[in-house]
Amino acid sequence: MSRLTGKVVIAQGGGPTAVINQSLVGAVLEARRFPEVTAVWGARHGVRGIVDERLVNLSEATTHNLERVARTSSSALGSTRDKPDAEYCNRIFNVFKKHDVRYFFYIGGNDSSDTVRIVSEHANREGYALRAIHIPKTIDNDLPITDHCPGYPSAARFVASAIGGINADLSALPGIYIAVIMGRHAGWLTAAAGLARRHDDDGPHLIYVPERQFSIDRYLGDIDQVFKQHGRCIVALSEGVWATRNGQGKEIPVAVDLMRKAGREPQTDAHGNIQLSGGVLADELADVVQKQLGIKRVRADTFGYLQRSFPGAVSSVDAREAREVGEKAVHYACGQNRNGSVVIKRTGDYAVQYELANLADIAAKTRRLPDEFINADGNNVTNAFRNYLRPLLGDDMPCLERLWAPAAKLE
Amino acid sequence: MSRLTGKVVIAQGGGPTAVINQSLVGAVLEARRFPEVTAVWGARHGVRGIVDERLVNLSEATTHNLERVARTSSSALGSTRDKPDAEYCNRIFNVFKKHDVRYFFYIGGNDSSDTVRIVSEHANREGYALRAIHIPKTIDNDLPITDHCPGYPSAARFVASAIGGINADLSALPGIYIAVIMGRHAGWLTAAAGLARRHDDDGPHLIYVPERQFSIDRYLGDIDQVFKQHGRCIVALSEGVWATRNGQGKEIPVAVDLMRKAGREPQTDAHGNIQLSGGVLADELADVVQKQLGIKRVRADTFGYLQRSFPGAVSSVDAREAREVGEKAVHYACGQNRNGSVVIKRTGDYAVQYELANLADIAAKTRRLPDEFINADGNNVTNAFRNYLRPLLGDDMPCLERLWAPAAKLE
Repeated sequence: MSRLTGKVVIAQGGGPTAVINQSLVGAVLEARRFPEVTAVWGARHGVRGIVDERLVNLSEATTHNLERVARTSSSALGSTRDKPDAEYCNRIFNVFKKHDVRYFFYIGGNDSSDTVRIVSEHANREGYALRAIHIPKTIDNDLPITDHCPGYPSAARFVASAIGGINADLSALPGIYIAVIMGRHAGWLTAAAGLARRHDDDGPHLIYVPERQFSIDRYLGDIDQVFKQHGRCIVALSEGVWATRNGQGKEIPVAVDLMRKAGREPQTDAHGNIQLSGGVLADELADVVQKQLGIKRVRADTFGYLQRSFPGAVSSVDAREAREVGEKAVHYACGQNRNGSVVIKRTGDYAVQYELANLADIAAKTRRLPDEFINADGNNVTNAFRNYLRPLLGDDMPCLERLWAPAAKLE
Repeated sequence: MSRLTGKVVIAQGGGPTAVINQSLVGAVLEARRFPEVTAVWGARHGVRGIVDERLVNLSEATTHNLERVARTSSSALGSTRDKPDAEYCNRIFNVFKKHDVRYFFYIGGNDSSDTVRIVSEHANREGYALRAIHIPKTIDNDLPITDHCPGYPSAARFVASAIGGINADLSALPGIYIAVIMGRHAGWLTAAAGLARRHDDDGPHLIYVPERQFSIDRYLGDIDQVFKQHGRCIVALSEGVWATRNGQGKEIPVAVDLMRKAGREPQTDAHGNIQLSGGVLADELADVVQKQLGIKRVRADTFGYLQRSFPGAVSSVDAREAREVGEKAVHYACGQNRNGSVVIKRTGDYAVQYELANLADIAAKTRRLPDEFINADGNNVTNAFRNYLRPLLGDDMPCLERLWAPAAKLE
């Protein structure tokens, strides 16, 4: 089959990451090398920019500017939370047809892959030749098939670094510390806290993820035990931890329960995701420790947006892979005339290759932490998880060294 | 006057910073070079470790271990919030006398300098020759005389980097973002957010510090105006902002008002400082924007402990200076037989020298942001402040580049 001649449209969807622009720039620079590509257009704010025809000509962006954008966190083209239905996808398709767009690259998470699938199927039905590729990114690391998702390693590095610093902080001034970390349905990012641990008594001492039911009594019992043993306790906990289910068997996050108790009905976004942000979960989990265990010095922080957009903690491995999935997407579409979702396959320890998966196998599916990554008590991660994550964090992790000096001889 | 022969005791007090161990290691390595110094002891957990005689022999720590400790955030010896009274200082003095300690170095903020002063005066009264030096550190940057305090530049770098990332994030997915930043009485760290701004429409668009009275009405009016102009608004705000005074004219932080409204009496530490941590201020400031301005996407994060112990955002200038104040402290005490507090004097743009100030001029005094660093509306920082802080942030600040591409020509 001969290569399609026409334009490229590239867009970024969903929450930003620290390396999503690497994928953007990887795809743009590769696409500009193909003579069949008549122009590389970027859509402002995801699919919204396609239907509104807010498009920029990336063929005219300087390579220097693009290279600096690649190193900048967040989505340089802008993003959107729009989740296109069939009608919306029809409008996307009409814009593509009108402007002779033959290649569509959408960088995003589960929802974005679904959009690519719908638009691709629509083009098929209409007999319009279109190559459509989903380029993965998500700090949630919850896409299936791929070994991991670009964006996750840098967010994981931020969390592991932060908890490493907190562990040093709490070693200096003992107490209880609770970190509330992003993760609505999957505990991948919270689990990353576990990489902060070097010595047996280092934090995080306890890790709670949405893959296990949360119990406030066990939480208090766990903390009590750690505090008695080490005189301090560092807890990493997913914002999405849940203790109860509703009538339909759906998990109700503790944060949602607390918001409702406080008289606030949590917002939901276009994707039906309940908004879990805010300090109420952290405050309550600190309060209950103070009151029930009588421990005075208890602090809780919600890591919030820092996890996904902090620009100073990028994993070198993540940056490289995010770049390469963007480049590979172009090779698959422009070079090999294929549709699909780029996935990372781990082929060594540590080495990867890239493959193209079927969109239908990716879209709208969520991968949670497998059982082998969670300890039997459901309150920490295993060495199997540590071995999985460690090579992804990149070079030169911050130094966290203990002082080794013998007791002074007092006469 | 001939040099005193005897032991060194060094300790770390107050909240950790990312570079306080540089000062520790600078002092230890220099002190080990003086033949008059018979041993270098470190006290575990500040002055508490002196009175409890929990002392380690740093003469026997390896240089390699010390060099790696220097690069580690937080206080490697451990810290304390104890604020010694005359009786406590008497016990410190007795330990010194018992073990022939002739040099005392205490790395800390305002309260630690006060401890050094009291112990020093006590030794004087007793006719015991003791050299006592306060080595400054505080992320609050609120010590008088010194141009800035070691620890502040790294915390400032964290805040400026974080807000730079948030600005990119909110450019991709517009809305309102409020960052609650450490600073009880002084807005130095919050002001650092201002360094994230490159383009005129970059955040932070509004900065509120405790040096100015806070008004919720002006806050809402300011946000409304920025949001109408830019479609997004990023706010940096000190945890200590206050709107009212009590009967004695003392400023009541908004956070304290909110905690009391919620039925929680805020804790106070040994120094009489009210505990401002927790998410209640951030949550309330987000809620009021949603309700009063009808803006849907509003997020607020409390930066919390990350600001002071994050190990991956150290300023190279800060690391160097923190090291050098520790080294200079030893030169002043062991080489020149002097007491005092080491201060940094800015002698060029950018160059510094070190001097020794009188303890009585440092202790228990707080330096707030001068008027020239705050704009006339009291809702942002000035270029004078930016020029003050910029050289302190160190080399290679994270890249934050905008994509420059012309609109696509739609036929």
